[in-house]
Formats: sequence, structure tokens, C-alpha cells
Amino acid sequence: MTANQPRTSRRAGASEGQLSRMFQALADPTRRAVIAQLSRSPASMTELARPFRMALPSFAQHLSVLEKCGVVQSRKDGRVRRYRLVPQPLSVAEDWMVAQRAIWEQRLDQLEEYIETMKAESR
Amino acid sequence: MTANQPRTSRRAGASEGQLSRMFQALADPTRRAVIAQLSRSPASMTELARPFRMALPSFAQHLSVLEKCGVVQSRKDGRVRRYRLVPQPLSVAEDWMVAQRAIWEQRLDQLEEYIETMKAESR
Repeated sequence: MTANQPRTSRRAGASEGQLSRMFQALADPTRRAVIAQLSRSPASMTELARPFRMALPSFAQHLSVLEKCGVVQSRKDGRVRRYRLVPQPLSVAEDWMVAQRAIWEQRLDQLEEYIETMKAESR
Repeated sequence: MTANQPRTSRRAGASEGQLSRMFQALADPTRRAVIAQLSRSPASMTELARPFRMALPSFAQHLSVLEKCGVVQSRKDGRVRRYRLVPQPLSVAEDWMVAQRAIWEQRLDQLEEYIETMKAESR
């Protein structure tokens, strides 16, 4: 890819692969709900799994996807493994979206200016 | 799912399915580059495909994913089909991310307040 590089380079470590993994992780409602829960507080797997009617191995698979993209980290705390949110990968993805919107809005501004110029010239 | 509903309801038409499709669409670097290109201006498939070393049917498949999630619309313009960006589905996804960050930042503020209280009480 030579053109259209998203403007994510302002955050260290942002790569196309990281962005793809983050958006892939967000493409599932269970994983989004886990992120929303962990935004509120760290939690154990049992606590996180409670709102879902899902076998624990399937739920563990979702947690594994989140850990692999770096948005969730876990640590053994006595006999319980606790999960916490790492907001950096989310910020990278958000930055990408904000950058696209900025480009889009700039274009609308330019179109508006152009129309104003045309109007002024036709008077 | 009874808990942890993401706060996307403030935009009409936002649903879990729409969010999943949008994030799925964003989980591929070619599709992200197409969105970035269309943020700048509408374009034909030939123009959009130019930066990529990819067979046209594979590229068309990516455009089809983008059309299905509603972020891209196409229209026949004479003999050429032209593609344009529809920013609403991107905004819905961005809103979801902003809402999670707000919850996270509020939690940090509360923690900070708690620490300040503890400090004050220990004086």
C-alpha cells in the first residue's frame, strides 16, 4: 500500500496489524460488552461471564481475542485471574476514526467555500 | 445481554448488528484505505483499486463489505459506477468508542478523588 496511510503514526506502536486486530476484536457484541464492563472496573472471568448465556470455554475464547490485541490484560491475584482494560489500543483505533472524520469535514468546508465563491461571482 | 449495553442509542438506527458490521468492515487495511480515500473524494472502482496489487474481483468483494455496512454507497454515473462515503455508520462506531473512554476517564477521576480524600484524612 503506497497511498492513503491512515494518520495513526502520531501514537507510537500503531500499525496496520494492530488496528486490524483492534477492530476485529470490536466486531463482536460480547467482546464490546466486556470492554464496556472493564471500563467500569477490573473483574474476574466469572464476573465478566455472568451477563452472558455462554459456555465458559466460548467466553474464554473472547477474552483471549481481547488479550491478543492488547486491550485487555490479566494477572493472577491469589487463586483468581483478574482482567483489566488497557485503553491504548482503543485510543489508536479512535484516532484513526477521528482522522478520517477530520478529512471528511475539511472537504465539506472546502466545498462550502467553493459554493460561496461561485455565488459571489454570479452576483 | 442484560447488562453493559453500549451507549449508542443516542443515534437513531444504531444497533449491535450495525456496530459489529462496521467494526468488521474496519478490520481490514484495504477497506480502511478505501474509506480514507473516499473521505477525500468520491471515486470509481478503477480509481479506488489503483493503489492495490489485487485482482479486481477480490477488490470488489471489499467494496461489497463496505456497501453492506452502509459506510459506502455507489451509483451508476453514465458507464461508470461511482462510490462515495456515508459517514453515519462511522460516527456510530466512533460514538461507541468515545462513550467507553468517557466511562474509563470518569473512573480515573473518581480514583483520584478517593486518593485525595485519603491523603487529606491522613494529615
